[in-house]
Amino acid sequence: MTRYQNETRLLHGGDYNPDQWLDHPEILEKDLELMKKSKSNTFSIGMFSWSQLEPREGEFHFEWLDKIIDNIGEMGGNVILATPSGARPAWMSKKYPEVLRTNNRREKMLHGGRHNHCFSSPLYREKISIINRKLAERYGAHPALYMWHISNEYSGDCHCTYCQENFRLWLKNKYGNLKNLNDAWWGPFWSHAYSDWSEIESPSSIGETMVHGHNLDWKRFVTDQTIDFYEHEIKDIRQLTPEIPITTNFMADTHDLIPFQSLDYGKFASHVDVISWDCYPAWHNDWETTADLASKVGFINDQYRSMKQKSFLIMESTPSGVNWHEVNKVKRPGMHLLSSMQFIAHGSDSNLYFQWRKSRGSSEKFHGAVVDHDNSEENRVFKEVAQVGEVLEKMKEIKGSYKEAKVAIIYDWENNWALNDAQGFSNASKQYPQTLQAHYRYFWDQDIAVEVVTSDADLSKYTLVIAPMLYLIREETMTRFAEYVKNGGTLVSTYITGYVNESDLTYLGGWPKTLQEIFGLEVKETDTLYPKDKNQLIYQGLPFEIHDYCSILALKEAKSLANYTKDFYANTPVITKNNYGKGTAYFIGARTTFDFLEAFYAEIAQEKQLLNKWVVQGDKEVSVQSRDFEDYTYQFVMNFSEQLKEIQVASSGIDLITGKEKNKNLQLQPYEVLLIKVNEG
Amino acid sequence: MTRYQNETRLLHGGDYNPDQWLDHPEILEKDLELMKKSKSNTFSIGMFSWSQLEPREGEFHFEWLDKIIDNIGEMGGNVILATPSGARPAWMSKKYPEVLRTNNRREKMLHGGRHNHCFSSPLYREKISIINRKLAERYGAHPALYMWHISNEYSGDCHCTYCQENFRLWLKNKYGNLKNLNDAWWGPFWSHAYSDWSEIESPSSIGETMVHGHNLDWKRFVTDQTIDFYEHEIKDIRQLTPEIPITTNFMADTHDLIPFQSLDYGKFASHVDVISWDCYPAWHNDWETTADLASKVGFINDQYRSMKQKSFLIMESTPSGVNWHEVNKVKRPGMHLLSSMQFIAHGSDSNLYFQWRKSRGSSEKFHGAVVDHDNSEENRVFKEVAQVGEVLEKMKEIKGSYKEAKVAIIYDWENNWALNDAQGFSNASKQYPQTLQAHYRYFWDQDIAVEVVTSDADLSKYTLVIAPMLYLIREETMTRFAEYVKNGGTLVSTYITGYVNESDLTYLGGWPKTLQEIFGLEVKETDTLYPKDKNQLIYQGLPFEIHDYCSILALKEAKSLANYTKDFYANTPVITKNNYGKGTAYFIGARTTFDFLEAFYAEIAQEKQLLNKWVVQGDKEVSVQSRDFEDYTYQFVMNFSEQLKEIQVASSGIDLITGKEKNKNLQLQPYEVLLIKVNEG
Amino acid sequence: MTRYQNETRLLHGGDYNPDQWLDHPEILEKDLELMKKSKSNTFSIGMFSWSQLEPREGEFHFEWLDKIIDNIGEMGGNVILATPSGARPAWMSKKYPEVLRTNNRREKMLHGGRHNHCFSSPLYREKISIINRKLAERYGAHPALYMWHISNEYSGDCHCTYCQENFRLWLKNKYGNLKNLNDAWWGPFWSHAYSDWSEIESPSSIGETMVHGHNLDWKRFVTDQTIDFYEHEIKDIRQLTPEIPITTNFMADTHDLIPFQSLDYGKFASHVDVISWDCYPAWHNDWETTADLASKVGFINDQYRSMKQKSFLIMESTPSGVNWHEVNKVKRPGMHLLSSMQFIAHGSDSNLYFQWRKSRGSSEKFHGAVVDHDNSEENRVFKEVAQVGEVLEKMKEIKGSYKEAKVAIIYDWENNWALNDAQGFSNASKQYPQTLQAHYRYFWDQDIAVEVVTSDADLSKYTLVIAPMLYLIREETMTRFAEYVKNGGTLVSTYITGYVNESDLTYLGGWPKTLQEIFGLEVKETDTLYPKDKNQLIYQGLPFEIHDYCSILALKEAKSLANYTKDFYANTPVITKNNYGKGTAYFIGARTTFDFLEAFYAEIAQEKQLLNKWVVQGDKEVSVQSRDFEDYTYQFVMNFSEQLKEIQVASSGIDLITGKEKNKNLQLQPYEVLLIKVNEG
Repeated sequence: MTRYQNETRLLHGGDYNPDQWLDHPEILEKDLELMKKSKSNTFSIGMFSWSQLEPREGEFHFEWLDKIIDNIGEMGGNVILATPSGARPAWMSKKYPEVLRTNNRREKMLHGGRHNHCFSSPLYREKISIINRKLAERYGAHPALYMWHISNEYSGDCHCTYCQENFRLWLKNKYGNLKNLNDAWWGPFWSHAYSDWSEIESPSSIGETMVHGHNLDWKRFVTDQTIDFYEHEIKDIRQLTPEIPITTNFMADTHDLIPFQSLDYGKFASHVDVISWDCYPAWHNDWETTADLASKVGFINDQYRSMKQKSFLIMESTPSGVNWHEVNKVKRPGMHLLSSMQFIAHGSDSNLYFQWRKSRGSSEKFHGAVVDHDNSEENRVFKEVAQVGEVLEKMKEIKGSYKEAKVAIIYDWENNWALNDAQGFSNASKQYPQTLQAHYRYFWDQDIAVEVVTSDADLSKYTLVIAPMLYLIREETMTRFAEYVKNGGTLVSTYITGYVNESDLTYLGGWPKTLQEIFGLEVKETDTLYPKDKNQLIYQGLPFEIHDYCSILALKEAKSLANYTKDFYANTPVITKNNYGKGTAYFIGARTTFDFLEAFYAEIAQEKQLLNKWVVQGDKEVSVQSRDFEDYTYQFVMNFSEQLKEIQVASSGIDLITGKEKNKNLQLQPYEVLLIKVNEG
Repeated sequence: MTRYQNETRLLHGGDYNPDQWLDHPEILEKDLELMKKSKSNTFSIGMFSWSQLEPREGEFHFEWLDKIIDNIGEMGGNVILATPSGARPAWMSKKYPEVLRTNNRREKMLHGGRHNHCFSSPLYREKISIINRKLAERYGAHPALYMWHISNEYSGDCHCTYCQENFRLWLKNKYGNLKNLNDAWWGPFWSHAYSDWSEIESPSSIGETMVHGHNLDWKRFVTDQTIDFYEHEIKDIRQLTPEIPITTNFMADTHDLIPFQSLDYGKFASHVDVISWDCYPAWHNDWETTADLASKVGFINDQYRSMKQKSFLIMESTPSGVNWHEVNKVKRPGMHLLSSMQFIAHGSDSNLYFQWRKSRGSSEKFHGAVVDHDNSEENRVFKEVAQVGEVLEKMKEIKGSYKEAKVAIIYDWENNWALNDAQGFSNASKQYPQTLQAHYRYFWDQDIAVEVVTSDADLSKYTLVIAPMLYLIREETMTRFAEYVKNGGTLVSTYITGYVNESDLTYLGGWPKTLQEIFGLEVKETDTLYPKDKNQLIYQGLPFEIHDYCSILALKEAKSLANYTKDFYANTPVITKNNYGKGTAYFIGARTTFDFLEAFYAEIAQEKQLLNKWVVQGDKEVSVQSRDFEDYTYQFVMNFSEQLKEIQVASSGIDLITGKEKNKNLQLQPYEVLLIKVNEG
Repeated sequence: MTRYQNETRLLHGGDYNPDQWLDHPEILEKDLELMKKSKSNTFSIGMFSWSQLEPREGEFHFEWLDKIIDNIGEMGGNVILATPSGARPAWMSKKYPEVLRTNNRREKMLHGGRHNHCFSSPLYREKISIINRKLAERYGAHPALYMWHISNEYSGDCHCTYCQENFRLWLKNKYGNLKNLNDAWWGPFWSHAYSDWSEIESPSSIGETMVHGHNLDWKRFVTDQTIDFYEHEIKDIRQLTPEIPITTNFMADTHDLIPFQSLDYGKFASHVDVISWDCYPAWHNDWETTADLASKVGFINDQYRSMKQKSFLIMESTPSGVNWHEVNKVKRPGMHLLSSMQFIAHGSDSNLYFQWRKSRGSSEKFHGAVVDHDNSEENRVFKEVAQVGEVLEKMKEIKGSYKEAKVAIIYDWENNWALNDAQGFSNASKQYPQTLQAHYRYFWDQDIAVEVVTSDADLSKYTLVIAPMLYLIREETMTRFAEYVKNGGTLVSTYITGYVNESDLTYLGGWPKTLQEIFGLEVKETDTLYPKDKNQLIYQGLPFEIHDYCSILALKEAKSLANYTKDFYANTPVITKNNYGKGTAYFIGARTTFDFLEAFYAEIAQEKQLLNKWVVQGDKEVSVQSRDFEDYTYQFVMNFSEQLKEIQVASSGIDLITGKEKNKNLQLQPYEVLLIKVNEG
């Protein structure tokens, strides 16, 4: 049994960078004391240690790291050991400039920043092999070693000659010959057909930017090349430490917490043993309610849980504010516990922080951390962290449990790339990820569990599948959708679906036949509205506002549930329902305000018995999420509001946080969270 | 007689890119069928075919083109054959990087995009000569050949060493010696005098940007070098096919449809046989009324008609939306016919589209086209195109007719360049083209024909000449203005007129003497206002708002028609009138809201009998434009509103569109257009 | 006695660029006439004359300059002679590209603009030595020579290999060894430790931007290297003309007139003999009142006066508008005299203009000047300039006098750099200079004299020292603050003070102990608010709004003057007072609206007897500033409003402007200024 298999605790702790404090032994000593006081048990080490591990080429220093790992091990802690490829030492950039990236304008970057390395450079690959191997050899058998943390937040691309050559090889491998490539990229347009592989270069703002197939393949290549680099990094590690699980930390994009845009994590997920990711919501901001944001946090955590259909790790989060939002506000009292519990509620087995101790200098010195510059256990943040540590210990029995869902929302990275790149519609209003968040919101409000999966997912387990705005859709996906509905599934799709195939080539001959069959209609035109333009639909006697997009539909077997009320397509269908095989397919032809989605999904949830049975009388701002283990359901009841709330539930149980019995009438203070263990046996 | 001379039909059709569909013979066949069904008769071919015509250096493939041209010829269609210089094949960029542009930062561009070629490169000129000659030799005598379409939408500049050398030669040719150049560029300022020609480089954001004479000469050079490239392209074509007319397609800038900013089309116009241009209004947008936009469409089409004082061609337009506006909304039913008729009303002999069939891939696949991806003749856009085709056949008798106007507005490219580059006033409020559109608006509202001409135009034929904001004005222009007024003309000028000569050097000794004489006043100061600053004038007892600019005037012979009411120049003149020789010169000293221009021009129109006699009781949103042929006047009556409208006219006639007799009381549905043939004989 | 020592007149005149007009002898002659008519006595010459002085390498032409200087001398004028390094001739850029800058992306700039020279280039230094020496030899003994004007508005940086090498030398000199540098820059963070000096490069947008110590040292180096270049320029000049004073013209940043951001003028000041600077307020703008802007003008002129604690020179200003504001509005009648007097009131001994005569061409041809393109003495601007010339003659007895102040505000360039670079808080709301302007405003409103000094200033002479937002504070500064308060001083500090030391490394162990002692409290957390977030404090029974920043304070000896009313720190202290030694230290824990600062400082001003005794009943929009000479106080009374104003003063006197006796009840027309000579003897 490895440490990973033996560990029964939920993980608490975070990124620990003792390499910044080697000259301050008193600090390192204090750290050990504070780790215990904060009930921390797991530390990620070495993410950016290369200049300490190998300060000069070939001169390695592991003594300091030995000491740190031993110390953590001695106090019963887990070490998540990172490979240091996230940043190179300056000597390497100086001696071997090829390790640095070349940007899309073909400028060789200078030494600096982090994540500024070429994924193709043979030299960089050789250097990372050497040091990774040394780390695996030295620490692979260390009893404290819990997991490998490969590099850090892989992202970005490189346009150097090595990468150009690899891109061409990738294309050759994909297309076989130039004829196929020219067909897929619609080569004759603007005379863009290639006559020799060597003519192909990566997209560039001073060169080619307009060929969508080209752009799409470049993004696919960047994902594949990043995975290839990752696989290169783990090769020896896997061989030397076959039982130690391996992860790398994923991310979200922007303060809206939409799925990371630059890499296809749907593809990357199968290469890691455990999903881990870094979550930084902008709590208490001034443009949305706390519940608005909490719903987005729910969405993306559900996505990460769904990736491998098992529990995952929060690898980084902040106990306070961050340093890179436009406004870096501190968490209000109570929010740290609440938001930590939300991670667990959605399937995380950890709450780890970036970082353990605030740096003293450079750009992240004001990023929230467990230990502040005051080095004190008396400040508010430290105390709230310690409280989370304590609570995590009380609830450790749920570790590893997985939450089932009957509703799936489909997020497709390639679709997102293609849609964003599409010239047409309106760039400002495409908003694919935000549209998914809006559809998700109904279920979050109603405490109905959701999975967020890719187009390739097995849909058979779901009662309801929601696939909005699948602008790029493969024939194969359409076939699987048809199978799913035929077999009794319920499918919802929307405007801007079914335009192009996997090469970003439009379907010819009208809306794809398979979609016509599933939905019993044909999409004839898509009207793109200006921001001030509004339309309307009447659904169940009530008016709902429409904006941005209106599909004009020609119905076949489908029946209309609602019509447009305005413009030249007034009185034509906008919301439709079609019985197909044993199932049902709904089509939402226009972008509506959220109130329509609420009314629409309420109907389906009722009909398909999707409602949360435990929540008798809920509250939209009180989120209830559960995890199951053996005969018990662990109900997380979370008040994401600044008001006192009350909800009614179907059964009583013990609140693991306070240890108190809770009856079916639950009262929650602002930001309060309960974890009620309910016997469902 | 050539096909061009024989053709009696108005042109209908557009850009046809069969080179994208050579692998789809069923599509090419369907095209022929749909061409007929849509009453299309003219197709522009080959704009971006170089990679199909010469897929490898020196290997030419014309068979496919032979077939297409034969097919079009057989069905009685016209071919407008393009030279392919708008985009190069990848092999050429790879083998001869000199054909690619160097941007102003002196970065050599990579292969990609289109229009990315150096206008000076000897190699590119050689390559285009070879293929143009082959095209002329092969198709010059083809009976379907109607016209040459040289390249596509010439634009942009190049800063490579060839271009630098050509710029220096151009300067030597212009100035003769460096003393003259240094004088013209005000060389001693900031030590910018040159001591050797080789020191001169083109303006650059990493070099010189602040010398206005330098910038102005560079823009002139870019126009001249573009024309030189064009002349190079047509040399052999002209020799081989002397009877085939030659054009290249011009453009407008931004969704405001202002004249294209980068090339002096006033100069370019004399080099083409027929003016043709590409017009893409953003109909149904949310920031202006339909009439607001229609007036701008009127303005720029009037400008293109005025360039050669004869009918012109719409070479590109869209039957639906485009793909490059911020919001790409589809045309509402009726708008396609209405907007097509507006082109003809202002002097076009065609309505051609970009493009015939929507591309399947790459960046323009969602640009509106006659044939959609559904390949159907049943959809709304195709039907509306076919309707336009039918209407064009009914009205073909007006082909070639030219509309006279008694009002001219002067648009001067060099003035626009110099004014935009001027450091002073306020960059955000200069708005030279928009100011001309505002002055034009009164005449459009009142259905009074206007020509839009350059400063060099012969003014003697006009009753009224409007020359706002001529910041840069040549001595010679002032003299011609003086002659015009002396001989009885009416001239209107405004604030920010008469500052600099053709070298962008200020006039010394006060406002130019010739202008002082014409207008009977001197401009003493120009006050530039902040956005929130307002002044006011009282004209004919009514107050009108002033913003942006206020000239302080010292009157001599002129009399004041209105004074300022505020600020330190309150009670001093702002609107003046001067009798000069047999004519009259008005000066508008400040920027006013449109209501003043209405009142002001109403007075002049009344006095000078400029009013449209046929329109007894018009409507500002119903535009009436006419073309004359023999004894008939063809009155286009166009309702650019979403309301039912009624106007009274002076005489009845047949509506060519419906074939019905119309009396003097005309009712128009929203977006309805009538074309009433009135016997004026 | 030198001309400088002998000159008893206040300086009036400005930048004179006859080198632009050498072909126009009639203009040069007219200039002499207009100089006299405008009562101008001082002219800065040669700022950009290099291409006229040395049109070809080694070929020098001084004849024209001889003539100009002789002419000015003959009419009794002073010449401020500039070295021409502000712009190079084109031949030099062409032959020696090393003289041009390399930008941070490592692109070599092209010839063009001005101020585009490398401060390290040996060749440029050699060339400037040669010409400076020639100027000093030729004109050093000329009786008209008043002062040296070195280069023009030094600014910007260069990243060429010479500069890289100099940066490394500067770092070696500062740190001695790499260990020290790595410690100061917090090297191990992101593996940024250096192992060899050669690895270090300047910050770059394509390289390193995130290491704050690195950025801060680069900015320090740029200041030092600029001063080094300046010292190189003056070496021979000083040797040849030891008695002629030397200056270079400083600047302000943005239309908000905040201290220039790119160079540490606090450091530069000790290298010039006389402070001179260029002041361009945007009078009559539409976003603030005239008094708002006048207060900012007061602030920065006070800063320049404080630099050497003596009178200074306005080297450039405009008699009308400029050409580089977003809106270039002309000065309203009266504003020129008023704003000119304000310069003198705050300690200037000059009002000099850029420029004497408007250029005819190139980018500054519409910048306001004494003589316009009309070459006339009859226009409004010329007459207002002549009026200023006349008034300056009437008040010359105040020349050289210095105004004492009991209040100091600390502006620290390094703090500004570090705070702007800090990642944390909120970038949009840091606003360090604007915060100082807000604190200054109370004193300006109340006509209380202020000095604006650096952290290094001797504080012992002040009754009140205001040091807001000293994010970066040296140990030594804290010690001096402690001494100052201990000895009876009154110190005010604020939120975001005391975070980092001079290396931008945070203080460890909590808020710095010295600050804790001075203020009797500890800062525990800083809450950064979103723009819509508001808090509140109650001070003396009145509520005041809080935004942007809230420090959470733990009081020790201090007592609370006001508490927060909202959020989780409601009822905790926000404004505190501490008795420390013989003095008092106030801490303002949150950013408030200005009304709080008014109430707060009113209390202190009352208690510390800081109020202006001469102003019995003032007006916030009427600024009173004074200069003292022998037994007299010269009271400048300036109405910065568009209304008639009345104030009461303590004693009567003669208004030097009108020559009239004024009693204690002063009435002022809009924009009127009085200069009342009061006998205090």
